[in-house]
Amino acid sequence: MRILISFYLIFSSVAQLRAQDVYKDMRARWLEKARQATPELRETVKQPIGVVSMERDVKAFQGWRAAPRHPIDSLYTGSFKKKSGIVLDFGEHLTGHFTFSVDNIRGVADAPLRFKFTFAEVPAEAMMPYDPYQGTLSRAWLQDEIVTLSEVPATYTFSRRLAFRYVKIELLGSSRYSDFRITHVEAKATTSVTSTPDALAPGTNPMIADIDKIGLTTLKECMQTVYEDGPKRDRRLWIGDLYLEALANAYSYKNHTLTKRCLYLLAALSNDKGYLNGNVFEKPTPHPQANVLLDYALLYNLVLKNYLEATGDKETVIDLWPVAVKQLEIAKPYIQKNNLLDYEKAGHDYWLFFDWREGLDKQAALQGLVIHAYRETYALAKLLGKEKDVAELPSLVQTLTKAARKNLYDPTLKVFVSGPSRQVSFASQAWMVLGGVATKAEGAQAFRALSAVKSVVYPGAPYLYHYVLEAMIQCDLKAESKTLMMNYWGGMVSKGADTFWEVYDPLNDYLTPYNAFVVNSYCHAWSCTPVYFIRKYPEVFQQ
Amino acid sequence: MRILISFYLIFSSVAQLRAQDVYKDMRARWLEKARQATPELRETVKQPIGVVSMERDVKAFQGWRAAPRHPIDSLYTGSFKKKSGIVLDFGEHLTGHFTFSVDNIRGVADAPLRFKFTFAEVPAEAMMPYDPYQGTLSRAWLQDEIVTLSEVPATYTFSRRLAFRYVKIELLGSSRYSDFRITHVEAKATTSVTSTPDALAPGTNPMIADIDKIGLTTLKECMQTVYEDGPKRDRRLWIGDLYLEALANAYSYKNHTLTKRCLYLLAALSNDKGYLNGNVFEKPTPHPQANVLLDYALLYNLVLKNYLEATGDKETVIDLWPVAVKQLEIAKPYIQKNNLLDYEKAGHDYWLFFDWREGLDKQAALQGLVIHAYRETYALAKLLGKEKDVAELPSLVQTLTKAARKNLYDPTLKVFVSGPSRQVSFASQAWMVLGGVATKAEGAQAFRALSAVKSVVYPGAPYLYHYVLEAMIQCDLKAESKTLMMNYWGGMVSKGADTFWEVYDPLNDYLTPYNAFVVNSYCHAWSCTPVYFIRKYPEVFQQ
Repeated sequence: MRILISFYLIFSSVAQLRAQDVYKDMRARWLEKARQATPELRETVKQPIGVVSMERDVKAFQGWRAAPRHPIDSLYTGSFKKKSGIVLDFGEHLTGHFTFSVDNIRGVADAPLRFKFTFAEVPAEAMMPYDPYQGTLSRAWLQDEIVTLSEVPATYTFSRRLAFRYVKIELLGSSRYSDFRITHVEAKATTSVTSTPDALAPGTNPMIADIDKIGLTTLKECMQTVYEDGPKRDRRLWIGDLYLEALANAYSYKNHTLTKRCLYLLAALSNDKGYLNGNVFEKPTPHPQANVLLDYALLYNLVLKNYLEATGDKETVIDLWPVAVKQLEIAKPYIQKNNLLDYEKAGHDYWLFFDWREGLDKQAALQGLVIHAYRETYALAKLLGKEKDVAELPSLVQTLTKAARKNLYDPTLKVFVSGPSRQVSFASQAWMVLGGVATKAEGAQAFRALSAVKSVVYPGAPYLYHYVLEAMIQCDLKAESKTLMMNYWGGMVSKGADTFWEVYDPLNDYLTPYNAFVVNSYCHAWSCTPVYFIRKYPEVFQQ
Repeated sequence: MRILISFYLIFSSVAQLRAQDVYKDMRARWLEKARQATPELRETVKQPIGVVSMERDVKAFQGWRAAPRHPIDSLYTGSFKKKSGIVLDFGEHLTGHFTFSVDNIRGVADAPLRFKFTFAEVPAEAMMPYDPYQGTLSRAWLQDEIVTLSEVPATYTFSRRLAFRYVKIELLGSSRYSDFRITHVEAKATTSVTSTPDALAPGTNPMIADIDKIGLTTLKECMQTVYEDGPKRDRRLWIGDLYLEALANAYSYKNHTLTKRCLYLLAALSNDKGYLNGNVFEKPTPHPQANVLLDYALLYNLVLKNYLEATGDKETVIDLWPVAVKQLEIAKPYIQKNNLLDYEKAGHDYWLFFDWREGLDKQAALQGLVIHAYRETYALAKLLGKEKDVAELPSLVQTLTKAARKNLYDPTLKVFVSGPSRQVSFASQAWMVLGGVATKAEGAQAFRALSAVKSVVYPGAPYLYHYVLEAMIQCDLKAESKTLMMNYWGGMVSKGADTFWEVYDPLNDYLTPYNAFVVNSYCHAWSCTPVYFIRKYPEVFQQ
């Protein structure tokens, strides 16, 4: 009897294992589709434009300012021994490989040379000491590399791909019996962008034009063989970043094949239940980080719908439709009898992201996002003629909306609230609007009311600012939307950004989710969406 | 008129330039001969034998002792995060390339890994801080390398060739969200040695046997595509090291083709006057360090003679005979009317090496070396039937010898003296004996008298110990020679040497010519000559 039970258990667990992988017959094909859609990277050789002096300046972003000092010729002229600590400026943010060459100028090198190269996206990153390192992310993200050259002349290319505008070069070892100079440096910059977006309307506010330009650069730098979140860090495909990048791409570079590749990659690398992992890696072979973010998983469906609308490529979207249907399931178990999502339990089982801001209560945001995703997925089903697959969605949207209006709106304060402390936040207003819980008028009223709420929780990073801005525009808060963009993204422009940052708080240059601001990414995809707003809503931003 | 003068000057200087290169028709052919003689390197894959604990021990060489700790399996088992600082022991000195592999053991790497590897020939080199560096040679010789791995799993091979027994691995950066282990390390060790030397006589003193074994390893490690001086530093062909390595090779590995290659390389890369540069480099293309060492240049002729005697390869030696004749000229201008060499002037014009010991007066050593080289070159001429080319040598040897006996021998002290202060040194006795200035009896008497001379200048490095030992053997000081080897080279053995060191003072473990003992070479060719002595003089060392 015991043996029989054991056999039964073994058999059933094997059967279960096989049954577990809902996409078992599709993964290989999806991965191959992703591979076929891999873009060729466009390589451009770039030269530094000059040598800069990094100066302490309390008024500058993070206390450092890059002051032009010498034309780049001065790098190549004469002994490098007296130039240790020199900082080169490429004049723009680059992603790619760095090469330098050295040659003898007195005698012959009778010993190796040892250099430290520090690659920096922003000035402080070139100048602040990295050690002792207290950050919560790997110290290895920081782009300081030590290299030994055994012979001279030599040409050396760093095997590591780097993201930078500034390059600091320090000489750590050389022979006193010979001398050398650096004869050449160059960066081989890569991107999968090959097109040029349409120009903005003549007369567009110059700050908006600058924001657009920097947003385009940010997006271009992140568009490699996937939509990366940031080319310095984390250099990978996250669903949340994909959603925003694909939006921005649809209104600028229109490289829809890259979007297709990312949709397939994520599908192929989802977990056995069919739930999408929050992020995936391309190298050494495509693989996921096994970690489902509930809000990101649902955003996938929005990417799919936007992709269909931008391309009309029904074949791809129908191929991936089962994935969209599957993502709906993730949230369902958390819908309580009162039709509010149990966000505490969901947050225990999955990572709920929404924003970096600590202390943000995510009840309202989650309720709004689920409603939004369900409604959009149903709209997608209609485009595909697949309404039957998701027939329950319209009523779910209705009941969830009703519960949200009943429980999450404060009719006295005229704002949406979240959690037992009835927290008031930008996140809650944004997602209640995007979910269609608030009417335009209520949304506008709520946003306007926020400034009077003392304890209002502000967004902690550009990612949430995107959703706030989208919601404000939907509430016809045109002037306010433009002002927000001018103040927030324009704030980065005024502080010298070449690309938009992962984290930006106008009041705190040193804000970091990682306990080390130097490890922040200063070219981060989720900050690029002004590109989308400016071009989608010309009546708001190009007037 | 002015123009005419200018033309004349230009013409004459061009003519002079061309006329200057005495070997202009031969260099390319010599370089090609050197290329043809390049040995294939034999590669052997080596695994570490264990993990050691580096312990402070005042009795140990340079204060550090490697104590066996764990079998090597412990490196590969479990997370590497808790193993930072681990020191691997390969159990022997290796020269070559180091490779390691990593793989995930928890989650997937969501960030790069950053390591510091320190490769050490001796224990202290693995443990002493290198910075701030006060050495006079390039800091870049020290074998600490920082490496960033952007993906996991990964296999990384250091592009730099390394020389080491111990490898310290420190983890400088990793993700807290995943974990990894080192799955494999190996060294691809190279040497051009392919043969096995004859065994020593049964009953050879165990310490002599140990010295022989370590000498053989030292030589093997230095025999790469040239006779290097040291595989860690300076990794190149010096004439002085070549002389000693070729001697040792002739009595052990018998790879005479390597000697031939080195003879051709040096000839091809001599200066326009035909004088040999003290050292040459193979990479990136063969080139010399333009620096003539007077004593080294003359030693070339001895290498040539020894090569002929070992191989009978007259074709090569006759091809290079003009070089030998040319080297004789370097010393000639310094022969004064009294037939003593003006060693101060010679030392001003050229580097006179002989030994690292500061304060060594080099008059007697130079006089002895010139006589020795002239006599040996004449002997070589006789072997080639080329006496007419160097007909003046016999009389020069006679007059130089006579002057040395008259001026440099102190009949009261019964020792040879050097310089105006009448300095007494091992170097002077050795070279007066090798030059044949001293009779066997006088030489023996002089060496025996040294211990009573309070201010006697001892050798500063194994290089000079070689000449001292050779001279002592020539004076039939058999027991004393064996004692010297047992004490000096045996001292290194007792202190744990795997290979013999560039610098060794029994009384000072920290002796360094470079103001940083960690940059000393601990596998240095010029220390390998016990191999030669033990095998050439079995009656002295194998009894």
